[in-house]
Amino acid sequence: MTLIATDTTDDEAGFIKPNYPRNCWWVATTSKQLGREPLALTMLNTKVVLFRKEDGTVAVLEDRCPHRWAPLSSGKVVGDTIQCGYHGFTFDAAGTCVKIPSQAQIPGRCKVRAYTAVDKPPFVWVWMGDPEKIVQGPPADAEWPADPNYSSWSGETLAHGNYMLLKENVLDLTHFGYVHATSFKILDWVGAPTVTVTEDQVSFRQEFKDCNLPPMFAEVTAIGMQRKVNRYNYGSYVSPALNVATLDIEDLNAAPGQRTHFKFRVAHVTTPETPTRFRYLWFGGFDIPNMDPTTLSMCKTLTEVGFAEDKAIIEAVHRNIMEDPRHLDYPEIIVGTDQAAIQARRKLQAQLDKEKSD
Amino acid sequence: MTLIATDTTDDEAGFIKPNYPRNCWWVATTSKQLGREPLALTMLNTKVVLFRKEDGTVAVLEDRCPHRWAPLSSGKVVGDTIQCGYHGFTFDAAGTCVKIPSQAQIPGRCKVRAYTAVDKPPFVWVWMGDPEKIVQGPPADAEWPADPNYSSWSGETLAHGNYMLLKENVLDLTHFGYVHATSFKILDWVGAPTVTVTEDQVSFRQEFKDCNLPPMFAEVTAIGMQRKVNRYNYGSYVSPALNVATLDIEDLNAAPGQRTHFKFRVAHVTTPETPTRFRYLWFGGFDIPNMDPTTLSMCKTLTEVGFAEDKAIIEAVHRNIMEDPRHLDYPEIIVGTDQAAIQARRKLQAQLDKEKSD
Amino acid sequence: MTLIATDTTDDEAGFIKPNYPRNCWWVATTSKQLGREPLALTMLNTKVVLFRKEDGTVAVLEDRCPHRWAPLSSGKVVGDTIQCGYHGFTFDAAGTCVKIPSQAQIPGRCKVRAYTAVDKPPFVWVWMGDPEKIVQGPPADAEWPADPNYSSWSGETLAHGNYMLLKENVLDLTHFGYVHATSFKILDWVGAPTVTVTEDQVSFRQEFKDCNLPPMFAEVTAIGMQRKVNRYNYGSYVSPALNVATLDIEDLNAAPGQRTHFKFRVAHVTTPETPTRFRYLWFGGFDIPNMDPTTLSMCKTLTEVGFAEDKAIIEAVHRNIMEDPRHLDYPEIIVGTDQAAIQARRKLQAQLDKEKSD
Repeated sequence: MTLIATDTTDDEAGFIKPNYPRNCWWVATTSKQLGREPLALTMLNTKVVLFRKEDGTVAVLEDRCPHRWAPLSSGKVVGDTIQCGYHGFTFDAAGTCVKIPSQAQIPGRCKVRAYTAVDKPPFVWVWMGDPEKIVQGPPADAEWPADPNYSSWSGETLAHGNYMLLKENVLDLTHFGYVHATSFKILDWVGAPTVTVTEDQVSFRQEFKDCNLPPMFAEVTAIGMQRKVNRYNYGSYVSPALNVATLDIEDLNAAPGQRTHFKFRVAHVTTPETPTRFRYLWFGGFDIPNMDPTTLSMCKTLTEVGFAEDKAIIEAVHRNIMEDPRHLDYPEIIVGTDQAAIQARRKLQAQLDKEKSD
Repeated sequence: MTLIATDTTDDEAGFIKPNYPRNCWWVATTSKQLGREPLALTMLNTKVVLFRKEDGTVAVLEDRCPHRWAPLSSGKVVGDTIQCGYHGFTFDAAGTCVKIPSQAQIPGRCKVRAYTAVDKPPFVWVWMGDPEKIVQGPPADAEWPADPNYSSWSGETLAHGNYMLLKENVLDLTHFGYVHATSFKILDWVGAPTVTVTEDQVSFRQEFKDCNLPPMFAEVTAIGMQRKVNRYNYGSYVSPALNVATLDIEDLNAAPGQRTHFKFRVAHVTTPETPTRFRYLWFGGFDIPNMDPTTLSMCKTLTEVGFAEDKAIIEAVHRNIMEDPRHLDYPEIIVGTDQAAIQARRKLQAQLDKEKSD
Repeated sequence: MTLIATDTTDDEAGFIKPNYPRNCWWVATTSKQLGREPLALTMLNTKVVLFRKEDGTVAVLEDRCPHRWAPLSSGKVVGDTIQCGYHGFTFDAAGTCVKIPSQAQIPGRCKVRAYTAVDKPPFVWVWMGDPEKIVQGPPADAEWPADPNYSSWSGETLAHGNYMLLKENVLDLTHFGYVHATSFKILDWVGAPTVTVTEDQVSFRQEFKDCNLPPMFAEVTAIGMQRKVNRYNYGSYVSPALNVATLDIEDLNAAPGQRTHFKFRVAHVTTPETPTRFRYLWFGGFDIPNMDPTTLSMCKTLTEVGFAEDKAIIEAVHRNIMEDPRHLDYPEIIVGTDQAAIQARRKLQAQLDKEKSD
């Protein structure tokens, strides 16, 4: 890959406009967090209420009773229906009104929009766009946390900024040495990775040979910080909703019979509430079954600290963007390490353009 | 009354525009809350300061000194005048500047707007519109709390929503079974009431024969929850500022010599601060003199709980309205129980139209 | 001076527009508060980061890395440069990028704006405008706190209002008897002062002969509240950034050998963050070296109380202005004591007009 040294004044991704395609699988919540109680969420500037039906499948409705516009989530789930908390109007999972307590007649227009949901642990995915455009299931790249061969931990936070800022963050890991200098302590990630673009995804790969492990990996794998390893880092922009990253660890001096290869994975899920606010759900994990709770807890705490650092810098960037959202007063300098992020922006823009022209 | 089963996309009442007539008596505060200290309030998007003069009558001035625009309420009442807290400019109850401490000359334009107020316990009413349009006193329908034959309790809260949402709330009491299912416990109010429209008011009436009393009424009247009664519920949209409701209780199996009829009354007072925010002042009471403090306290607590439930659902409705204020994306379904509210909207609209054409 | 008794509906000073000239020396912070750590500030709606170089001189840069727009203040000072906290891009005090960790090539446009700063204790001044228009140093009128013959105290607060409201406040001291009636207790300042306008400044002067001292002055000078003095008060609008005031005290009945003259000075520094928000930095002091800490602490506490009263009334005025910013519904009455403020407004407007036409 050649180093790029251009700059641009384009606001290609439109960080203050709705830059999220609707014809896309988006994560609503984790499978574990959703039960029979109504769960109110904002996704793509739309208020929705989710609940599990008696058979465990997921219903998603617009969260506004068409009668007096109270949130359906103010009410309660009754069987496979949800009953509004204001006057008891009741809707089934298709959004059809099945009961108005005060009268027998139900006006034909008394219905709410329903969305298609898929519970594919660890995530509940929702299609927020045109139901006729649903062509495939949600990406399978984030299913590993449900695999019993993995031990994983997770978290969720609300970030005040455009969701693409997080995706760009995880596509340029030279920020490790600055944002996470005292948390993750990965100080040797300096250069630009190899970037590959396929029809669907943008991927990067970076290898560190005959090197050491940062503290968390050293401890979890029991390799320690002194023994030499090879580290193979790679990751992808999978969709507007999902980025993933993997670290393959190869122990170069393992004792005979010891395990020599380990895999660490991360899923970065971003769900825009608005153009300037998104929920960030993440999983981290090792391909080690049944890790002990103390080590898992250490991993979770460290990840929370690091991802809070990402959130802080992203929100600061967003505040600066908001002061000059069209980049009129100030250019944006692009360098070689931005290659993956720039390709992801283009992928997103192509998807937005396609959706607009459909 | 015939059940209505239509729907509408009209935003007749304009829940995000100033839908409050100015030529109307509005409640500023309760008679008890207003004394000699300046009281700063926002009414119909206008900042006013109120104080009692030495004879107890009420002065209402725009709360902005014309000199440097400091709020007059930052100062203090001196005799029958108010002295600005910035440089001491002093105004009488007519809004005339009577003193500039630094000079003898008082510019002719140095005055503030004054409003007409009427103290009719339990409320202080203010005419916020054209003084030449004052044609009658404030409605007498809310004077019963000042009647010694009644024991009453009251409260006030600031609600974030259009004031008409509260008025519609109290004109469709089928919400009892959902919003107040665990507080008021009135679970048999299911159908639509009879609605009557006169020149001034919109009224509803609903009767429950040979039925039981909900807990609060059962306890206060000592009838208990087992003995059969008739309940006659009726109420009115009296004006944009006031709704009232009454419950007449008829004990069908009273012992000889026992009191057989009781009256419970509520006054719902709404004073818009802006189109999206209003103060809600209310009184509840029974036609029982000198109720004991413990029972009164129980009644007040229960009413506060119930009315907080109303406030919560109204504010949630308002948030949904704000996302689609012109009803372009979503219809509003009207059913039979909305009849009183729809008639009240029309009454309000007629008053707004008249004010505009005057 | 003749009393003025006119009124105006002009919004000459434009209290909701950016009414701060950029070609002007503005105070960033006090000399003591600025060290080697990056200090992030907003000045004239521009985010800047300040730090001291190794030689103690001050660097001021726009607080936005041109790469991903992270605030440079999120990073750290390295030698005479600042390193961005996101990906380590490093800039010198001239705003030139001197290091991109991930590559050797530095794009030509990769730079940030630098501002000229002057550290003239007790303040650090910054020129936020056209560098070619710098014609003179910052005003010398506020250097007395650095003079060892003075004992001084200081404070800083963020006020929500236009900065000119504070300047008008300190140019009409008839507010003492109302705003500070119970704090400063200067109750005899009633009339309008003499106002003088020079090419640069607007000044007022007011004399109180054969009078008493308010508590703070009585205690600090040991003259007490009974002995007669002459008080000579004068002050100036020095620039949009600075107002100053002085009180000369002449003891008329000092015992032989006692000190008879004292000088009390105040510097009012205003730095707009936006048209509706400013930082207010102030110093108060006496020409008495080495005042004891207890007396200094009393002076500081009293000044904080009084200036908090100013802030409260100014913010209340600003809220009223925001409801009618163009003065369309309501006039602004001007009286004799407003003369100095009106002249200052004109001075400011002339400077704004000049800057616009340059």
